[in-house]
Amino acid sequence: MENTLIREEQITRRQFLTTVGKIGGSAALFSVMGTLGLLSPETMKAAAYTPPSGGDLTLSGRSGKKIIILGAGIAGMTAAYELGGAGYDCTILEARARAGGRAWTVRRGTTVTEIGGVKQVARFDNGLYFNAGPMRIPQFHVTLEYARKFGVAIEPFNNVNESGYYYNENVGELSGVKVPKRQAKADVKGYVSEMLAKAVNQKALDLPLTSEEKAKLVAFLKSEGDLNADLFYKGSERAGYIEEPGGKLDAGVRKDPFSLKAIINSGFGQFFSSEYSYDQQMMMFHPVGGMDMIAKAFEKKVSDRIQFHAEVQEIIQSTDGVRVKYKDLNSGALKEVTGDYCICTIPLSVLKEIKANFSAEMATAISKISYASAGKIGLQFKRRFWEEDEHIFGGNTLTNMDISSIYYPPTDYFAKKGLLLGYYAFGANADKLGKMTVAQREDYALSQGAKIHPQYFKEFEASFSVDWKKIKYNLGGWVAYTADDRKTYYPTLCKPDGRIYLAGEHISYITAWQAGAIESARKVVTELHERVMKE
Amino acid sequence: MENTLIREEQITRRQFLTTVGKIGGSAALFSVMGTLGLLSPETMKAAAYTPPSGGDLTLSGRSGKKIIILGAGIAGMTAAYELGGAGYDCTILEARARAGGRAWTVRRGTTVTEIGGVKQVARFDNGLYFNAGPMRIPQFHVTLEYARKFGVAIEPFNNVNESGYYYNENVGELSGVKVPKRQAKADVKGYVSEMLAKAVNQKALDLPLTSEEKAKLVAFLKSEGDLNADLFYKGSERAGYIEEPGGKLDAGVRKDPFSLKAIINSGFGQFFSSEYSYDQQMMMFHPVGGMDMIAKAFEKKVSDRIQFHAEVQEIIQSTDGVRVKYKDLNSGALKEVTGDYCICTIPLSVLKEIKANFSAEMATAISKISYASAGKIGLQFKRRFWEEDEHIFGGNTLTNMDISSIYYPPTDYFAKKGLLLGYYAFGANADKLGKMTVAQREDYALSQGAKIHPQYFKEFEASFSVDWKKIKYNLGGWVAYTADDRKTYYPTLCKPDGRIYLAGEHISYITAWQAGAIESARKVVTELHERVMKE
Repeated sequence: MENTLIREEQITRRQFLTTVGKIGGSAALFSVMGTLGLLSPETMKAAAYTPPSGGDLTLSGRSGKKIIILGAGIAGMTAAYELGGAGYDCTILEARARAGGRAWTVRRGTTVTEIGGVKQVARFDNGLYFNAGPMRIPQFHVTLEYARKFGVAIEPFNNVNESGYYYNENVGELSGVKVPKRQAKADVKGYVSEMLAKAVNQKALDLPLTSEEKAKLVAFLKSEGDLNADLFYKGSERAGYIEEPGGKLDAGVRKDPFSLKAIINSGFGQFFSSEYSYDQQMMMFHPVGGMDMIAKAFEKKVSDRIQFHAEVQEIIQSTDGVRVKYKDLNSGALKEVTGDYCICTIPLSVLKEIKANFSAEMATAISKISYASAGKIGLQFKRRFWEEDEHIFGGNTLTNMDISSIYYPPTDYFAKKGLLLGYYAFGANADKLGKMTVAQREDYALSQGAKIHPQYFKEFEASFSVDWKKIKYNLGGWVAYTADDRKTYYPTLCKPDGRIYLAGEHISYITAWQAGAIESARKVVTELHERVMKE
Repeated sequence: MENTLIREEQITRRQFLTTVGKIGGSAALFSVMGTLGLLSPETMKAAAYTPPSGGDLTLSGRSGKKIIILGAGIAGMTAAYELGGAGYDCTILEARARAGGRAWTVRRGTTVTEIGGVKQVARFDNGLYFNAGPMRIPQFHVTLEYARKFGVAIEPFNNVNESGYYYNENVGELSGVKVPKRQAKADVKGYVSEMLAKAVNQKALDLPLTSEEKAKLVAFLKSEGDLNADLFYKGSERAGYIEEPGGKLDAGVRKDPFSLKAIINSGFGQFFSSEYSYDQQMMMFHPVGGMDMIAKAFEKKVSDRIQFHAEVQEIIQSTDGVRVKYKDLNSGALKEVTGDYCICTIPLSVLKEIKANFSAEMATAISKISYASAGKIGLQFKRRFWEEDEHIFGGNTLTNMDISSIYYPPTDYFAKKGLLLGYYAFGANADKLGKMTVAQREDYALSQGAKIHPQYFKEFEASFSVDWKKIKYNLGGWVAYTADDRKTYYPTLCKPDGRIYLAGEHISYITAWQAGAIESARKVVTELHERVMKE
């Protein structure tokens, strides 16, 4: 039966791969598939990293190499984990009492005092949390490789939810109307498809297509926009219903479409592409229990190498080695550690204020780079009204108000209480919110959010807000390179400066992601090990 | 601060709702929000059902009303649960040894013998399963209300995954090429946006828009298609990379777009809308551990009312009551049960062969309705190569081969082994696969699937397949009404025939969904209770 289906080259390939699999097992099959182009670039990249071999140092008489790592964030811990596995003697200096850096989960008892601010203590119920820093992971990021290796359980992060809303003010007819995403998308897809189908049919466009291909294009547009037989968009069940379909004679009453004018002026369409970028597409994931579960798993692997409460004061390198002076924040004493090399993962926003004898070129590069503004507020509610009243399970609502977005919790569905992100704001919005007092931020998040969810008034219990520009040892959400920075300063930042290597999300093209921190650390680990082996 | 933000009517509404919330609590707030149109139609529908009151029967001296329910699927158990709560004496006759009907999860030890087929025993490892029937739930379906009420844990069902593939044969240049969904979508969005932007700019379309609105439309198309400044689509990071971006100088190399011709002829675009329909949009959910967790939770509530191994032989109603003759499949004995009313949830495909003294109109209606063909195969693999090698966590791959689709498991990420759906086919494809022997189906699923995942050859362990047309007591996947059926026969099916009420997904406008079964059962429960109270 199957012989009628499979063309000859297919059988040959199948036989070949079966043979490879039988003889060499999974690893050989994987390798051959890679060679044949049957694996994705993501997979090939993941397979490309080879950690330093455990035997290299001892076999070559190079044991005892000391590496000072600055910062116990994801980059620093990746470096310590990978180098430690090869026998390097790593010491991580970390100013905070905890590891993880921006991979920071706020839960009951978490405290923070922003620069110039008052001390906040999270008074959330046990089990409720929000991720102040990274909160989602694309399925192809290296971060998941470590989660797998370390046994960290993951669950989906609901980055797309058609039941979330768009809500804009001052946009004409649809101002102040909360519109389910499904409805805005159905209308936009409908009108766009209708317009293009007409342009194609009226030969208004000079297309390099045969008439058969044009017919295929129009057929696609009909299905894409849910157009009627005459290629008009007259609304779609995709938008949802005024009266839901149900049992017996409840056939459902479809929503009428908004007018083309109203939907264009609404500005909703500009929100769509936030779901399209490579690193925001579904599926996305997050660790069960908080993003810091990954950091904690890393920490467990390298805990004996982390010196907490160690605030770096000065970095001094010579041709022989590196000395780092730090203040022991417990005792106030100034201490020092020495090593053969240093891996510095301190954000540039912080590093530029630390005394160091970098080369002039490196010092300039460090000083020139800006960091992004970003802020979040967690709001605890005593009832998950978004689930119970509005059937929204995770995902977000987007708005042109200053709060920018509301994120519904992608976990613990059906629980009694819940914690949502009352805002996740960037840039000017984040700056505006960040300048407020903690109480003002809460009031602002509630006032604007309540325009979308009036249940806020009744159900709110507690908040905790973070402005990353004001968080000591971070001073910003993530690196914000301009195209010019990438040309002028970035190559310098990527090169070792004598015995000092920079690592972190800022030394990558996956900025603002934990994967950037990991990938940069792996690069440094490989380079450093190669250098040591050549010494 | 907030006063500067909120317009006057907003403050008024806020004050009003706050007051309502304070005085009347959540229920009052909910009710007022509904009246003000602040709740969605989904929510209003969910709130509209009122179960029969527990006191109605006893207070009115109508205790002891006996209801015979045919079929312990979701509809039958919903009816028994809702009527039981009001004091009705329900008896469910179920031919099988288990409840749930099509809500059937196949796991280690599950057996089936299709009509004319051999007995299959699922030899999957413990913990691995697939849902032979319903496998996903839209977040607004009433099904989730019961899951919540019964304490059934849910997790997301990954109905959209851009890392899945499209794979078509005989479609020109892209024949036999597995293309990540993200890539096909980026290219189609890009070209479509480019074409329409040009048509708008060249005034090729007679649009009822001001020039400012046209500019907004073009700005939208630029963001929607990731067009360059000249409104050309030249590829996009959304499609993914040839070389992934990473640490240090790995900036990533973008994929080139396919040509407009190639992408149109590929037919990939026709797959897109499968993600758009109201009941297939993200987010979707499924119970942790298998879809039958919901059926099992229902069963727990009504277990003392279910008579298993009871195969209905004849339904006889008189003006006074209903008698149902059934065969006790354990003893072979013919037995009988009597009641005041009967709720029959037996699929029409099966019911039409059962002796019954329905009215001629009802008998005709029952006999005229067709059922859909649908088939699935579960394939157990000893390694989750889709996750490990290809970074695909859930979601599906769609193809124009007979297998139609491959669904990756939306659960137990990072586990060692995994079970995917090797096909989920409908219509002619399902018929073709259904006609094969079990061994042939397995071979076919492996042969076609291996064109997309050559790892099949090495990693396959066990299969189990289901052809719903050949499953006794179902004889079809779900009801398949034509528009004409809905006009001619459906109203009859919805009306009580004497003392007999039909219920099930087929008595709804949410066919093929458990929600249809539940909604229809609720309607019947309400109607029946009203009738009893009027007696």
